[in-house]
Amino acid sequence: MPLEVLEQLSEDLVDLQSTGIGILEHSHRQPTFDRVLADAVESCRKLGEIPDDYEILFVPGGATVQFSLIALNLIADGAKADYPDTEVWSAKAIIEARDAVPSATIVVPFEGKKFRYDHVPTDGEMNPTPGAVYMHYCSNNTVHGTRFHHPPKAAAGTPLVCDASSEIFGRPLNWKKHLLVYASAQKNLGVAAMTLVIAHRDMLKKPVRRLPSMFSYAAHFDAQSRINTPPTFAIHAAGLMFRWMIEQGGIREMERRNDAKAALIYGEIDRSQGFYSGLSRLECRSPINVSFRLKTEELDRIFAQEATLANIDGLPGHRDAGGIRASMYNAMPIAAAEILAQFMRDFAKRYG
Amino acid sequence: MPLEVLEQLSEDLVDLQSTGIGILEHSHRQPTFDRVLADAVESCRKLGEIPDDYEILFVPGGATVQFSLIALNLIADGAKADYPDTEVWSAKAIIEARDAVPSATIVVPFEGKKFRYDHVPTDGEMNPTPGAVYMHYCSNNTVHGTRFHHPPKAAAGTPLVCDASSEIFGRPLNWKKHLLVYASAQKNLGVAAMTLVIAHRDMLKKPVRRLPSMFSYAAHFDAQSRINTPPTFAIHAAGLMFRWMIEQGGIREMERRNDAKAALIYGEIDRSQGFYSGLSRLECRSPINVSFRLKTEELDRIFAQEATLANIDGLPGHRDAGGIRASMYNAMPIAAAEILAQFMRDFAKRYG
Repeated sequence: MPLEVLEQLSEDLVDLQSTGIGILEHSHRQPTFDRVLADAVESCRKLGEIPDDYEILFVPGGATVQFSLIALNLIADGAKADYPDTEVWSAKAIIEARDAVPSATIVVPFEGKKFRYDHVPTDGEMNPTPGAVYMHYCSNNTVHGTRFHHPPKAAAGTPLVCDASSEIFGRPLNWKKHLLVYASAQKNLGVAAMTLVIAHRDMLKKPVRRLPSMFSYAAHFDAQSRINTPPTFAIHAAGLMFRWMIEQGGIREMERRNDAKAALIYGEIDRSQGFYSGLSRLECRSPINVSFRLKTEELDRIFAQEATLANIDGLPGHRDAGGIRASMYNAMPIAAAEILAQFMRDFAKRYG
Repeated sequence: MPLEVLEQLSEDLVDLQSTGIGILEHSHRQPTFDRVLADAVESCRKLGEIPDDYEILFVPGGATVQFSLIALNLIADGAKADYPDTEVWSAKAIIEARDAVPSATIVVPFEGKKFRYDHVPTDGEMNPTPGAVYMHYCSNNTVHGTRFHHPPKAAAGTPLVCDASSEIFGRPLNWKKHLLVYASAQKNLGVAAMTLVIAHRDMLKKPVRRLPSMFSYAAHFDAQSRINTPPTFAIHAAGLMFRWMIEQGGIREMERRNDAKAALIYGEIDRSQGFYSGLSRLECRSPINVSFRLKTEELDRIFAQEATLANIDGLPGHRDAGGIRASMYNAMPIAAAEILAQFMRDFAKRYG
């Protein structure tokens, strides 16, 4: 998170908007929190350029909760949904959907595992299921560093459901193709264990089966995210993050910065003559997570170690892919990518 | 929350334990958060005097999520569970359990509504169901201000499941009678939209049906509250609150303070010769929520208004009961109850 937002949040814990009490102490049914919630929703709509027929909800729990809720709300017994498998989170979504609605058929129209997850499907590789209720996909894959630069190809009439947790508001989104877009808050929106859910009104009418309130999007919508005490702190933090991104120049500026950061790191990889090699195919490189490896695991290890000594943290790759991973979420400044690029250059000189 | 805890939390947002980064920035898989979680669990066990065969979990979402999870994990198709109805939260738990497991029978062995919820059931009034999987009860009822001073009478061999959200760690608890005790965090543990779940190991083995991970207590237990990114901030806040309560003298000191606060307010009611009348029967008065009314709704209104002018906030009763309600959670000092008692005395003199 940007320091200025963190500092604001830190102040607001003790005294929110000069009310004399902090955000945690305010009742979620009183005017002060009404405004916090309304501001967060309004800033979110503005930042994301979200059409009026889409609603904005804040749901407790991370994206893994949504894996179940989406299936429970949308897939009737015996119905089918498409879930291309592009890596760990999309694979988890498949498992959870199957466990949530055992009577449904969760079809996998693209199996990325066969390719060691080095790319997301081209339209030609995708084998969409006619009549699927929706196609679920993870738009940016954090482990191998791949991204759908365009939404995936679903069957005619099948809308998309998108897990955008790692890249929400990092670039414009084609809302009209999507029935629902969701993003857990911890990457770009501040506080873990809450998920932003942006859904077309049509899907907020009634779930396909009887559900308890907290599992029902319709209930969350009817209660305007306040079925019970909502994650007030996380909602406030998300509101501050939305406003920060707007002040910085909005989604297009986030995209420009993310592309600039990515160009710096991919540039080093591509100019290294094989000293560094990217895990993702060129045509679907993620600007958010740059995954690469050196010539040996030993070199990967030394690279990460020396980086830590140079105060560059969090570089070891995910255990599923190994290697090195630079994660550059919206709040990370370009200067930090410049430091990493310089380090990569120096390291290649010393060990190349 | 006590100001000293809030201020600590506010610091920890920007820099946790001199790590240079705040609690929100720490990975939930790294040693710093490992310690935060381990400390919270350890302090919780110490404070609550929780036996070793009970596990401590932190689950995203408030108590309303638990209403569903408890039923989903414990009641097999066709089985029965007892849910005495003692007020709004216990009544919601009944609705959610029925929606979560429509094939189960949720029995209501005591219907408090018939008595306008003025008391919790005596053993004689309770009609427990032989063979019920568990009996669910809400130990302290915040609207009408009633409390189970002793756990309710279940059928032989039926364990208890307790919603202790409004009074957790406000008095000792007879763990051995309970299969599971849960408390949403916003009253006594700090940050809304997380629930503390304390469960006997036996019930953490396997849910009675196939469930997605986030709905399964066994999965939460296997992952030690980290199936995915947990509510790291709320867990840290709860840890600080546990430690604060320990430092204050622990559960028995919380109980002493709560009883002292309650005695002040109930004392004014009982000495007022009917100017104030309590909503709860004497034998099950809650020390946490004192609900009473004046002779007319008009006087209730004036009382709340004048109290606000005297900087005593939050007194209007819950919409289900009307009247006046003084909520005195663990962190509220005795001095605040003294101020309210004095105000009640003065008000009765002026309007009596």
